[in-house]
Amino acid sequence: MSGIFITFEGGEGAGKTTVLQKIKQKLEEEGRQVIATREPGGSIIAEKIRQIILDPAHTEMDRRTEALLYAAARRQHLAETVIPYLNKGGIVLCDRFVDSSLVYQGVARGIGVEEVLNLNLFATEGMLPDLTLYFDIEPEKGLARIAEHKGREYNRLDRESLVFHYQVREAYLELQKKAPERIHTIDASDSLEEVTRRAWQEISGFLKNK
Amino acid sequence: MSGIFITFEGGEGAGKTTVLQKIKQKLEEEGRQVIATREPGGSIIAEKIRQIILDPAHTEMDRRTEALLYAAARRQHLAETVIPYLNKGGIVLCDRFVDSSLVYQGVARGIGVEEVLNLNLFATEGMLPDLTLYFDIEPEKGLARIAEHKGREYNRLDRESLVFHYQVREAYLELQKKAPERIHTIDASDSLEEVTRRAWQEISGFLKNK
Repeated sequence: MSGIFITFEGGEGAGKTTVLQKIKQKLEEEGRQVIATREPGGSIIAEKIRQIILDPAHTEMDRRTEALLYAAARRQHLAETVIPYLNKGGIVLCDRFVDSSLVYQGVARGIGVEEVLNLNLFATEGMLPDLTLYFDIEPEKGLARIAEHKGREYNRLDRESLVFHYQVREAYLELQKKAPERIHTIDASDSLEEVTRRAWQEISGFLKNK
Repeated sequence: MSGIFITFEGGEGAGKTTVLQKIKQKLEEEGRQVIATREPGGSIIAEKIRQIILDPAHTEMDRRTEALLYAAARRQHLAETVIPYLNKGGIVLCDRFVDSSLVYQGVARGIGVEEVLNLNLFATEGMLPDLTLYFDIEPEKGLARIAEHKGREYNRLDRESLVFHYQVREAYLELQKKAPERIHTIDASDSLEEVTRRAWQEISGFLKNK
């Protein structure tokens, strides 16, 4: 595969999705072949799998079933969208990927990072992103940003979920320590313009060295 | 878990499904707590997963996605049906399980037995059946039996699929060699009565030694 696969990771309110779109625009302005995608990414099969995961009626859903379904949707999105585009030499920017499963299924749901990683390596046939940007923000700040975006105050419920968001952040930082070559941390606590600038610096630096 | 988990495996026309029902009846006559099940086994979530696998419109289905979906349906069936019944001390007879994936996804689809085994051990949390009966029959004989059952002659199409059925049989025999303690081969070429007698001998012998 001659293309470049870049994933965007992070907790709530870090701004990764907005920054991803801005980066895509910048790459297009440079004349690069680039797509922005996220699972299930328009794959009919992956979309149906996602519907099963997200259906609130499925209260019996086992956490391992859930991890397997995320991996199945990931595989299908990879096979139908990501790999064909990489094979044509393009740049794929993907909003969340394997690291999200390691953090949310592996740590937050308690299955274990190692087990969820092995499962995902089955799904990706050992393939990992060439570069991953982790958008790091203090949970209070991220949640306040989301509340603001929704036009309301940061409230009691947000505070109650703080423990969960701290776990997620800690898990991402732990992953970054284990794979410092692949995962680069972006301080996402400043303005979107500044965060975009930092992300662009990382990506353009990476592309220059390829 | 205090119960006993027995799986029935084999190619087409080996009679395993019919024999399973007869064994269930015999165990009930002995006053045992027993259920007969097969994936998706009445689990709503597993049923929905199976619909995705079997939908003929899904021509884009990647073979690894398929293996992940089978493992997801298996996990959910295990979590909702098999494990709770084993925890109550019952006997679970299951028509096809992990070995079917090793043979069909691992060998026939060409993903590899080791990889599909590891995937399935994630799904079952390392759990394998206490006893597996593999119903062995020559593919020609099995296919002829099915044709007869459907009231037609064994035909050209059956013969064309013979290579596939030989691969399946060889894969089962290979698995049996690797796990002779767990997998017991039943010669399924004789009458259903005789095959049932052999299966019963294996199972009653196993239960006596527990």
